[in-house]
Amino acid sequence: MKPIITAFENSPDGGQGLARDMRVRWAMEEVGLAYDVRLVSFKSMKQQAHTSRQPFGQIPTYEEGGIVIFESGAIVLHIAQHHPGLLPADEPGQARAMAWLFAALNSIEPTIVERERVYFTERDESWYRARLPFIDEQIRSRLDPLSARLGDADWLDGAFSVGDLMMVMVLRRLEPEMLAEYANLSAYVARGERRPAYQRAFAAQKAVADAARAG
Amino acid sequence: MKPIITAFENSPDGGQGLARDMRVRWAMEEVGLAYDVRLVSFKSMKQQAHTSRQPFGQIPTYEEGGIVIFESGAIVLHIAQHHPGLLPADEPGQARAMAWLFAALNSIEPTIVERERVYFTERDESWYRARLPFIDEQIRSRLDPLSARLGDADWLDGAFSVGDLMMVMVLRRLEPEMLAEYANLSAYVARGERRPAYQRAFAAQKAVADAARAG
Repeated sequence: MKPIITAFENSPDGGQGLARDMRVRWAMEEVGLAYDVRLVSFKSMKQQAHTSRQPFGQIPTYEEGGIVIFESGAIVLHIAQHHPGLLPADEPGQARAMAWLFAALNSIEPTIVERERVYFTERDESWYRARLPFIDEQIRSRLDPLSARLGDADWLDGAFSVGDLMMVMVLRRLEPEMLAEYANLSAYVARGERRPAYQRAFAAQKAVADAARAG
Repeated sequence: MKPIITAFENSPDGGQGLARDMRVRWAMEEVGLAYDVRLVSFKSMKQQAHTSRQPFGQIPTYEEGGIVIFESGAIVLHIAQHHPGLLPADEPGQARAMAWLFAALNSIEPTIVERERVYFTERDESWYRARLPFIDEQIRSRLDPLSARLGDADWLDGAFSVGDLMMVMVLRRLEPEMLAEYANLSAYVARGERRPAYQRAFAAQKAVADAARAG
């Protein structure tokens, strides 16, 4: 039985790999796990058949045998802990990879998503433009130490891990102009995007978006 | 060798249990793990001895044998996966508890922390009060489905787990008035606070704050 994930029938990003199923697709491609996809519409995501699996009415979810979970972080960690390829062999290294996974989701992503969120909900308000420097300062206060820590290494802690996978995914949501301020983070994201597993996952989610557009 | 965590020498909350070392203390009390604490000042947190362990210059960190990690989510999950008491025995249940841990940190906490953050950085700006309804709507958009899912259960998924521990911690950061809008979430937080392990952890972090105040 292949795992089944859920993804947008019609992704808001049109297949740029920003929807959160991309994280899970990438993780499964890295460990060589074949999977099926159940597409959900914006309407069906809010109905009980889906919210019983994802209480917030979002994607992705992951089902495999008796396991039914949500939260892209939990899903990729579950995959990493059950299949070789996304965690180091040694326990201290595994713990550090887990720390970077949580850092991507809890120390970096919220500041980046907040900038997107105010664009969607407050861009017509009088304060929208005046506030952007406050938001950008908050984002840079996290990117500065991240960039310093990465230095000229390829990955955050030795070999590519689930922590890098999530960090690359999160950094891809940045405004391109801001990512460009950090040469090593830009190269880091590009390095992730060049991985064959990333490219297979990207192509798979883009095929869905292309099919939706073709109607 | 007992694990060593870091905590504020002088916590900004004065010992109300809102600093993130509380999450780790509570987890260790739940599983019966004795620990030592290294206190850090706002100045020493930004110095290399600390940032080598915590790249963002924050607390807590966790050191045990060769393991050195940061991010409260990674630390409590590491504890939960190595000591009985915070995860169910069955694998599907473990995966669901992990999903709730990530949900607390990635789906709930960011909206709550953003409200605190703008208070600290934008409360003197002309738009501050006008924006609060936007932020509160965002918080409620996450609390509504959380409250619906919890219903009249004691915990989010069967027995108390690492997911409940983190969710209670995150909900404690809410404005009391907003938490009070959700009777079942208020009772859920109170239920967490009544656990003996919570109370021991709370007393330990408060003793540090009281000592700092006494000078």
